[in-house]
Amino acid sequence: MKSLTRYKTFNTPRKRDYINITREVREVVKESAVKEGLAFVSAMHITAGIYVNDAESGLIQDIDEWLEKLAPYANYRHHRTGETNGDAHLKSLLVHNQTILPITNGDLDLGPWQQVYYAEFDGCRPKRVIIKVIGE
Amino acid sequence: MKSLTRYKTFNTPRKRDYINITREVREVVKESAVKEGLAFVSAMHITAGIYVNDAESGLIQDIDEWLEKLAPYANYRHHRTGETNGDAHLKSLLVHNQTILPITNGDLDLGPWQQVYYAEFDGCRPKRVIIKVIGE
Amino acid sequence: MKSLTRYKTFNTPRKRDYINITREVREVVKESAVKEGLAFVSAMHITAGIYVNDAESGLIQDIDEWLEKLAPYANYRHHRTGETNGDAHLKSLLVHNQTILPITNGDLDLGPWQQVYYAEFDGCRPKRVIIKVIGE
Repeated sequence: MKSLTRYKTFNTPRKRDYINITREVREVVKESAVKEGLAFVSAMHITAGIYVNDAESGLIQDIDEWLEKLAPYANYRHHRTGETNGDAHLKSLLVHNQTILPITNGDLDLGPWQQVYYAEFDGCRPKRVIIKVIGE
Repeated sequence: MKSLTRYKTFNTPRKRDYINITREVREVVKESAVKEGLAFVSAMHITAGIYVNDAESGLIQDIDEWLEKLAPYANYRHHRTGETNGDAHLKSLLVHNQTILPITNGDLDLGPWQQVYYAEFDGCRPKRVIIKVIGE
Repeated sequence: MKSLTRYKTFNTPRKRDYINITREVREVVKESAVKEGLAFVSAMHITAGIYVNDAESGLIQDIDEWLEKLAPYANYRHHRTGETNGDAHLKSLLVHNQTILPITNGDLDLGPWQQVYYAEFDGCRPKRVIIKVIGE
């Protein structure tokens, strides 16, 4: 079994942001030389997420508004600790902090519109993503 | 490490539908001859999902109504592209596009009520699911 | 490829409860002697979930209230079967029934605040969680 682990750091200028990281993940897959396996991608912070969906700017704004509706910025118990990012924790739970991508014939085996996104919900500071490839 | 990849195509007669695919996944596991490992199951489209839950018809209707409540059919920015399926993208994010199933002793290692579902949110056309088994 | 599978049983005194299982997962990883790989953790029941987030008591209460808001205890079609736990099925779908954790250098490779939680939504009875480690 081969494996390769890489870490990427994102520091978004906005509190909430959505970054297409498909190319970065693909590069790690190529570097790993894994032909058949899985690529695991996860935010290492609990106020960010990873999801697979469309690279269409209107939809990305729809997703952002929808997340704010279901997990709004508000006054949470968590804020008694001095934090103000309770909503970011809930948004992270909603989109999930991680995804798995299949690798076939040495490349990501995605459908025609599937793109991998890093979803930042509490940005303006450096945050890490782990990409781990396993397979053969 | 062994691996096996299979693709299934679904073309549901309804726009939204929920199809129990546990048997199909189990057959791929058997075909792979993997005794210990993981089965990855993912929709390859961004308006469908995969989830694990109960094969009870009342609950399936509950899930459908609940998804429509949290991610309703409405007029989204995404529709400026000519699409009308913004809700299907959001529903896909909610249930998640993928799942992992454990394989032990050559079979899916599921709890007594766990069933794997393909959730279609924008049907009436052929859409693919990937099943990839890895292990030994 | 190495693999190790362990099952844990939880029987929470409360209907809804959130249990930090990071230590239990870490122990299985150590026992497996896997240096590079993935740890799969899943509830084996369809009224419980696994998620990764913060071990902060205020936030855990926020999460519980938020789940009750989005997937409330109510009268569901599922209850025609005699069950009363329709909300627990929906809450399980929301937080997801499973997670994957990366293993690097023989230990869980988590960010500074990432903790693994077993989320019980229909407790007061024994329920199982599967932990399966694969890697090398």
